[in-house]
Amino acid sequence: MTTRYTGDDSTPERLMSQYYDLHRGSTIFRTLRIKTANRIGVLARVLAVVAEHGASLGDIRTVSIAPLSRIRDIDMGFTDATEIERTVDAIQATGEAEVLEVRDEVLDLHAGGKLIVQSRYPIKGEADLGRVYTPGVGEVARRIAADPSLAEHYTTKANTVAIVSDGTSVLGLGAIGPLAAMPVLEGKAALLSQLVGVFGIPLVTSSPDPARIIDAVSLVAPTFGLIQLEDIAAPACFTIEEELVARGVPVFHDDQHGTAAVVLAGLITASRLVGRELRACEIGVVGLGAAGNATAKALMHYTGRPVRGADLSAPAVERIVAAGGAASSLDEVMATCDVVVAVTGRPGLIAPGMVRPGQIIFALSNPFPEIEVGVALQHGAALATDGRATNNLLAFPGLCRGGLDAGVSRFTPAVFRAVAEAIAGLAPEGQLLPPPLDPAIHRAVARAVALTAVAEGVANRHVDEDYMLDAR
Amino acid sequence: MTTRYTGDDSTPERLMSQYYDLHRGSTIFRTLRIKTANRIGVLARVLAVVAEHGASLGDIRTVSIAPLSRIRDIDMGFTDATEIERTVDAIQATGEAEVLEVRDEVLDLHAGGKLIVQSRYPIKGEADLGRVYTPGVGEVARRIAADPSLAEHYTTKANTVAIVSDGTSVLGLGAIGPLAAMPVLEGKAALLSQLVGVFGIPLVTSSPDPARIIDAVSLVAPTFGLIQLEDIAAPACFTIEEELVARGVPVFHDDQHGTAAVVLAGLITASRLVGRELRACEIGVVGLGAAGNATAKALMHYTGRPVRGADLSAPAVERIVAAGGAASSLDEVMATCDVVVAVTGRPGLIAPGMVRPGQIIFALSNPFPEIEVGVALQHGAALATDGRATNNLLAFPGLCRGGLDAGVSRFTPAVFRAVAEAIAGLAPEGQLLPPPLDPAIHRAVARAVALTAVAEGVANRHVDEDYMLDAR
Repeated sequence: MTTRYTGDDSTPERLMSQYYDLHRGSTIFRTLRIKTANRIGVLARVLAVVAEHGASLGDIRTVSIAPLSRIRDIDMGFTDATEIERTVDAIQATGEAEVLEVRDEVLDLHAGGKLIVQSRYPIKGEADLGRVYTPGVGEVARRIAADPSLAEHYTTKANTVAIVSDGTSVLGLGAIGPLAAMPVLEGKAALLSQLVGVFGIPLVTSSPDPARIIDAVSLVAPTFGLIQLEDIAAPACFTIEEELVARGVPVFHDDQHGTAAVVLAGLITASRLVGRELRACEIGVVGLGAAGNATAKALMHYTGRPVRGADLSAPAVERIVAAGGAASSLDEVMATCDVVVAVTGRPGLIAPGMVRPGQIIFALSNPFPEIEVGVALQHGAALATDGRATNNLLAFPGLCRGGLDAGVSRFTPAVFRAVAEAIAGLAPEGQLLPPPLDPAIHRAVARAVALTAVAEGVANRHVDEDYMLDAR
Repeated sequence: MTTRYTGDDSTPERLMSQYYDLHRGSTIFRTLRIKTANRIGVLARVLAVVAEHGASLGDIRTVSIAPLSRIRDIDMGFTDATEIERTVDAIQATGEAEVLEVRDEVLDLHAGGKLIVQSRYPIKGEADLGRVYTPGVGEVARRIAADPSLAEHYTTKANTVAIVSDGTSVLGLGAIGPLAAMPVLEGKAALLSQLVGVFGIPLVTSSPDPARIIDAVSLVAPTFGLIQLEDIAAPACFTIEEELVARGVPVFHDDQHGTAAVVLAGLITASRLVGRELRACEIGVVGLGAAGNATAKALMHYTGRPVRGADLSAPAVERIVAAGGAASSLDEVMATCDVVVAVTGRPGLIAPGMVRPGQIIFALSNPFPEIEVGVALQHGAALATDGRATNNLLAFPGLCRGGLDAGVSRFTPAVFRAVAEAIAGLAPEGQLLPPPLDPAIHRAVARAVALTAVAEGVANRHVDEDYMLDAR
């Protein structure tokens, strides 16, 4: 990751790289167990060989130390499976090191899935059984029957989010199917539990038919406090979200609004870093799929001005024009805009010669951006970044936590904008965005969501000014 | 609970009562904090007063002991909320005891729901993030895309059961709605995690429309290893289950097949206890809803002979005739059958004078049976029991565990029969059924399910003879 604020050598580059170096979309992780002679300098030489083969390095753990030798586990990331063997061969060829084992620790970790569902209470005897199950549960059921709103108190509903996907747009991998989306949804659910204590339930669908998804999700919606749509391709994702909203289901599509909030946050800090006022910038969005469309709309809501939108699909352009944007083209955006956001899924789409001096360029396609950050900077961009720096992990946990706590009935543009501002407000000095695993970020996002929802009149539960106040 | 094998004083009555005394369908639990004088005999007198008011006693825990007084928490079960105040007043009126507090511990325990969903691994730093989420998850997703069967290895799917209800037939409470069913489904999920380590995911539906439920469940079915239908009224439950089976979804309706397996198990041991051969008995089932229909079919599969079926609903009778049964009436069943199973939901339906000497009577409606057990025995029944003794908690955990482990594609009558035989085989000497919280029972049921599924050709995964062999 080479986000850089040109003209300043104390750049965020080094710090950001710690977060994102390993986060290229299709990295294959392996752990190599390596035995080396117990001499100063050997490890450095081995790692140099690894670097020559393009593998990134993760953790290094010493396994054993003997008088003459030392065994270490070294985590490495490869972009191609064939690199693994070449790297192993190159390490052996040094004559100073022996690869004892190549392990798939990441794959092993996914075996059996990444979630646990369990009873909150041990059920050890008949007395426990009578409380948790029949007949104790009878009174609870009758109370909810008399007042259904009590389900929020007496069940997990108010802390539970369904994470729904049809597998049509998974990571940078495209329409790889519902079952292949499952590990991603489980990862999101694992993060929800870890970062904000929300229960995430993955739900994948056997069909990408929007009508069936809409009907099924609205049918099971009473089970959940919120629905998070995930990895659903445009334009179906628009139809699904809009129709669910129309049916009163509290829902947001993470790839639209989560991503848009994080990109907007990054643009707020980026414009600050280069000494511009984002609201005064001419802004263009190239690629108007789920993320691009939502980002363009979030930008218009933030700036109060039209965004230029470009896409090869006429309906996609019509959609953004209907939302107040201006139809444009890649060439026009590059020639006229101060800020360019590209989310096209087309690596290298932006030719170096198209970059205008002073531009802010967010080339967000994963795993390969529309223009390499270094190239954009060389050709005069004031600031450039790619998709690894705009992790939507910054938004969705707080959206869920705050949305549940306020009983949000509907997410409004103001809610998403508040998320972006909360994230931008917590970016460390000189950096685009805050580190995504800091719990304070997610509490601040939750606070922004809940308080804005109350102010917007879309909260079913009152949340007062103290809510998550310790977040900052 | 007064299950009794007449003519034998070493009856199962005492032991069974330990399991089921508190399990009347609509019990309201309260914990009373009571201060008494520190004298021998005071507690006994207080408990006698409680008993006079019809409240059942649960645990008693000493809270504090002072020189002159003692404070205890006493768990009590009431059948009516108005009894609570009367009991409290009566305790105070003894002059020997003071009620300090009345607490709703069972309700408190349900607050926030009874399940926890969490990450299997802590996500502490960027390295963990890269493994659990992007980019580490990318390789897992790509592998599943190439071979969808790998989802059973790399996700929670193979250990997860959706517990689906529309809330139309909850406990003995009827159509109390989907949200009111939630605590029951959570209780089942809690038991699944506790007894067999299965992840149960409650799903309630906003509509009882069978067509919508069928479509929604089959749409999200790829997420789960199995679907357990729960608390869905007849006849919709038949349509829903049959159509899901037709669509290739692995599914069973607990109120049909779980209940039927437990009742069949109870009838196997009951006939043994009274020295009869169940296969030679004339059997009648009164009430052909979900449980009655499935029980009649399970009995016909077990005995190879027709069962007499009685119901006020003509379609219900036609259904059992189509399955090989004989249309009958309550009077005819009582007059001609050796074994009578009643699941009508109509307390007191069976008049004492209808009982024939030597009959085995299972009067299963909850919370009040078609005939009280004691009354049936007084009028000559050889053995009688009610719904509290036929807890379907004995069947569903093993059905899920074995069904998941064998990758069952379809549950057959032979699988349910094997469940019944496994349960009956583990009933302690002189008792109808084994204690439902004994893990060995659930392992034995799982073993019966998996091995029978393999033998029936409905298992997608091989399970060998050693599977759960330590269960017995």
